[in-house]
Amino acid sequence: MKILGLDPGTAATGYGLVLFESGGLRLECCGVWRPRAELSLSEKLRVLSTTARALMSEFRPGAVSIETVFAAKNIASTLKLAHARGALLAAAAEMGLPVFEYEPRLVKKALVGYGQADKRQVRAMVLSLLARQRARIPLDAADALAVAICHIHALPPGA
Amino acid sequence: MKILGLDPGTAATGYGLVLFESGGLRLECCGVWRPRAELSLSEKLRVLSTTARALMSEFRPGAVSIETVFAAKNIASTLKLAHARGALLAAAAEMGLPVFEYEPRLVKKALVGYGQADKRQVRAMVLSLLARQRARIPLDAADALAVAICHIHALPPGA
Repeated sequence: MKILGLDPGTAATGYGLVLFESGGLRLECCGVWRPRAELSLSEKLRVLSTTARALMSEFRPGAVSIETVFAAKNIASTLKLAHARGALLAAAAEMGLPVFEYEPRLVKKALVGYGQADKRQVRAMVLSLLARQRARIPLDAADALAVAICHIHALPPGA
Repeated sequence: MKILGLDPGTAATGYGLVLFESGGLRLECCGVWRPRAELSLSEKLRVLSTTARALMSEFRPGAVSIETVFAAKNIASTLKLAHARGALLAAAAEMGLPVFEYEPRLVKKALVGYGQADKRQVRAMVLSLLARQRARIPLDAADALAVAICHIHALPPGA
């Protein structure tokens, strides 16, 4: 089972592909898409959508895992995030992939063991789970990998 | 000049194509896309994205006009709207179309003459501008036509 985790944003979208096989996790690839800052909103969304579709087509994940969105204090950044999610969720469905959404506290619980863990703890756990492969994991990709791993934890035994 | 107006929503997205030629407005087509309610969010967004791209490919508008989004009292519906916008804006950019965004009060001002006009006044003006052609204009498409007409008003003379 191969899961694509996404951490959407119009300025930077983190992604990470995690393979779950014979009881172990393997990092297939990860990185960050950064549309050029001078692009219009619709052009940035196009960059995210086409790049995500190309990755899905190349690496053939079985599902996409993504954090739910909630109203943050900064409504402007929440709205940008929702635009990026919209373009990426449409791209996933277009590639025939099911999308699973997890609340941030569930991602933290799956990785660190409790829902109030902070971002650094989550990232440290992602690195300790996947860094054996000596892969370089950019900070922006760690959150995408976390939500991919959260979905793998949620899979029924034997999946 | 042919303009595609969009009024995004995950449950219903209104659209309307308005042609501006020899000083007059002509309605080319309009309608509403309603993804089935039982679809997942990503599937609804896929329906909107692929249907919008098919329409753009078929009717070849020169630009897309859309209302800006702002934080409404109901944050849940604002977030849904932003997801629909994200999928549609990415679709427009993918078809090579420039996107123009107008604040709701500018759309009202362009149609009715003042920014505090209510929705019914805007719709009545859309009908009176375009109904000479005896086209049936669904209510949900009227707002999309309004933002298309707003962009035509904003064009420089001779465009």
